Amino acid sequence: MQKGPVYDIVIHNGTVLTVNGAFDILNKGVVCIADGSLKRIEERTPNQPLPPARHVIDARGGIIMPGLVNTHTHAAMSLFRGLADDLPLTSWLNDYIFKAEARWLNPESVYAGTLLSCAEMLLSGTTTFCDGYFFEDAVAEAVQESGMRAILGQGIVDFPAPGVPDPKKNVAEAARFIETWRGKTPLISPGLFCHSPYTCSEGTLKEARKVADEAGSLFQIHVAETQKEVKEIEQRQGANPVQYLDRIGVLNAGTLLVHAIWVNEGDIACMARHGVGVSVATESEMKLASGVAPIPEFLKKGLAVGIGTDGSASNNNLDMFQEMDTAAKLHKVTTGDPTVLDARQVLTLATRSGAKAIGLGKQIGSLEAGKKADLIIIDTHKPHLTPLYDPVSHLVYAASGSDVRDVIIDGRLVVQDRALLTFNLEPVVEYVADLARRIAS
Amino acid sequence: MQKGPVYDIVIHNGTVLTVNGAFDILNKGVVCIADGSLKRIEERTPNQPLPPARHVIDARGGIIMPGLVNTHTHAAMSLFRGLADDLPLTSWLNDYIFKAEARWLNPESVYAGTLLSCAEMLLSGTTTFCDGYFFEDAVAEAVQESGMRAILGQGIVDFPAPGVPDPKKNVAEAARFIETWRGKTPLISPGLFCHSPYTCSEGTLKEARKVADEAGSLFQIHVAETQKEVKEIEQRQGANPVQYLDRIGVLNAGTLLVHAIWVNEGDIACMARHGVGVSVATESEMKLASGVAPIPEFLKKGLAVGIGTDGSASNNNLDMFQEMDTAAKLHKVTTGDPTVLDARQVLTLATRSGAKAIGLGKQIGSLEAGKKADLIIIDTHKPHLTPLYDPVSHLVYAASGSDVRDVIIDGRLVVQDRALLTFNLEPVVEYVADLARRIAS
Repeated sequence: MQKGPVYDIVIHNGTVLTVNGAFDILNKGVVCIADGSLKRIEERTPNQPLPPARHVIDARGGIIMPGLVNTHTHAAMSLFRGLADDLPLTSWLNDYIFKAEARWLNPESVYAGTLLSCAEMLLSGTTTFCDGYFFEDAVAEAVQESGMRAILGQGIVDFPAPGVPDPKKNVAEAARFIETWRGKTPLISPGLFCHSPYTCSEGTLKEARKVADEAGSLFQIHVAETQKEVKEIEQRQGANPVQYLDRIGVLNAGTLLVHAIWVNEGDIACMARHGVGVSVATESEMKLASGVAPIPEFLKKGLAVGIGTDGSASNNNLDMFQEMDTAAKLHKVTTGDPTVLDARQVLTLATRSGAKAIGLGKQIGSLEAGKKADLIIIDTHKPHLTPLYDPVSHLVYAASGSDVRDVIIDGRLVVQDRALLTFNLEPVVEYVADLARRIAS
Repeated sequence: MQKGPVYDIVIHNGTVLTVNGAFDILNKGVVCIADGSLKRIEERTPNQPLPPARHVIDARGGIIMPGLVNTHTHAAMSLFRGLADDLPLTSWLNDYIFKAEARWLNPESVYAGTLLSCAEMLLSGTTTFCDGYFFEDAVAEAVQESGMRAILGQGIVDFPAPGVPDPKKNVAEAARFIETWRGKTPLISPGLFCHSPYTCSEGTLKEARKVADEAGSLFQIHVAETQKEVKEIEQRQGANPVQYLDRIGVLNAGTLLVHAIWVNEGDIACMARHGVGVSVATESEMKLASGVAPIPEFLKKGLAVGIGTDGSASNNNLDMFQEMDTAAKLHKVTTGDPTVLDARQVLTLATRSGAKAIGLGKQIGSLEAGKKADLIIIDTHKPHLTPLYDPVSHLVYAASGSDVRDVIIDGRLVVQDRALLTFNLEPVVEYVADLARRIAS
């Protein structure tokens, strides 16, 4: 028996992808967890006894890696998954989604839709997500029940919105949300989500920025998503969306720009200067034909880029493995260069870089001693993951969310052998299925 | 008890996607199978007793649909999955794949690699695949063991190839393969696969065409895959690849053109005139940065287009659900039109249209009385498939291969509750893993 502390959890018999700065890979790794944090990550030498632990997990030759960080979701939109497809963004939003949201969103439905998405995310290896929606208190309650880590942004838009009938109170409502949830539970960081430069006035954006800064919260905003938006902002503001946001002083390091598809070189330099984070949502952006965000250019300028799924009404799932695969392949074919966005880069976007983009770079995103114990174990005993020359290649190009076996968040086992341990999914599925029958009819 | 025949299998309690010409969807469908064929597909009225059957399958509210048709694979290339990624096509082929093939391919390894891929395809809902490789007898033996339906093309190339050291004998070897397997088993249709217009001479192509026509076999060929190929053929032949193949008389209805990315309007008209089938392999073509095949233009001209995965060394899996999703999304974003390639069209490509492209349109590809009983059942009791407004949307945009529960081919249950019934996968996985360790070292 080895001397030293007794760990809460020790994981062994797997290949550890640390996704640290050196991208260290430990072929026979041991990961030791106590008090919610990673304490030791090391290669096991032959015949070395395992450190003492209350719970020992055998990865059975699989892959042990950081939990995936989904940097852009509207979790409760699972309620509208598949309600309307193959439509332009404006028609999809105005004719279907906004109408369904206005009629069917309430704290109860948002709570259920979010829990459903939490189940989907947990079972596909996402441990942290960054959300923006309405009734965000209900989202926070669902996140608490699920055991996930999340950054939650109360939605802000200058027209009557679900739960915020008076747009004059939109920023105040976000401030109240932040105040309610700040410091309440270590897994939830409250913030706000301004819908876009075309649906929020300059005054709203500035006020929201002030609230976010005073609380030390993340300021999220959809920006430069479509060419239409760029034209509209140029006409209204005499500047493109990024230039406009820069001019009114709302860009700083506590900012997440979502989509950022139609940006030019000057915009990217400006984004880098302010140290903003960026979230791309490749599959949703493809499905809505919005365009291709210049990820390789973002990375050249040193921006912290994360991968998001967007809501499952425009994707239509929350599988970050598929998102990695598609992002890597899309940029190869659109640049004509198959070496662009290689597997390691893409895996880094979905973990360490994404964590940094949403302001959690010091806590999560890689397996390093001192960071929070957010990790997943991949079962590689599958025909589509055989043989195994390179675990990183498999994760990006061959795996899918259903290959995730175990999930640990903040040192707590929340998925074991693909069973969800934190809440009972069945009543949630029944509630959502029943609601969908009413929405459809 | 209802009068009438006793069926071999009756499936009930599911939504039946027929993918017939009218795209009929039966919400409470019953599918009756006897003698390997579909006998009745109909809506079940309330309280109607089930037809008598030896085996009744409860789809438990899931989706019953035609088995997927993978129109382009090199199944045994699973041996090299993840061996080399993020490389240009020529370097990937010349520096890695051709070398590994020359050294490691033999009937035993091709048999094992193919069986591994058959397991992967079956467990992800593919019931028929169209293959091209070397040692194709070993491929046929693996297919027989797996219970799959396949069109198998013995590879033809004008340099020494695995199993065909003397290129002068390449067409003769393909003819021998066809002769050996023609009529041997109803599930295997032997044919040939000319690698490309740049690796096969005019004489070889013409000879191969003659052999295929005499046997009534499919003539497959990679064509117009890269801009480099087009330039090379234009220089050598004074015509682009499709024009060249047309001029030398090798295009007819018994032809499958694979990739067909760099084709112009005249080429597409020529392809339509000859009634050739086309197979696109979107994910592989993206990963190798080859380009985007003009599927919408093919469809406008009435071409039979199928979806293929290509080999898993360039994809890196054989999941046709992911392939459908990516194809739909890629064409939306590259055309800027989110209505392009809608979910129904894409599902049709992966089933009925793909079957037609490889010459099996009368036997398989849809659930219609008289066709072969090749079908799959999707388990929709998953968070990522909840709620369900539109089964077609879910199949294309939300599902993945791991949602397939049961698979029936030629009236035989080959996958039940995700367990493979036809062969023991474990020794295959062990053999391939062991071989990969030697390849890697």
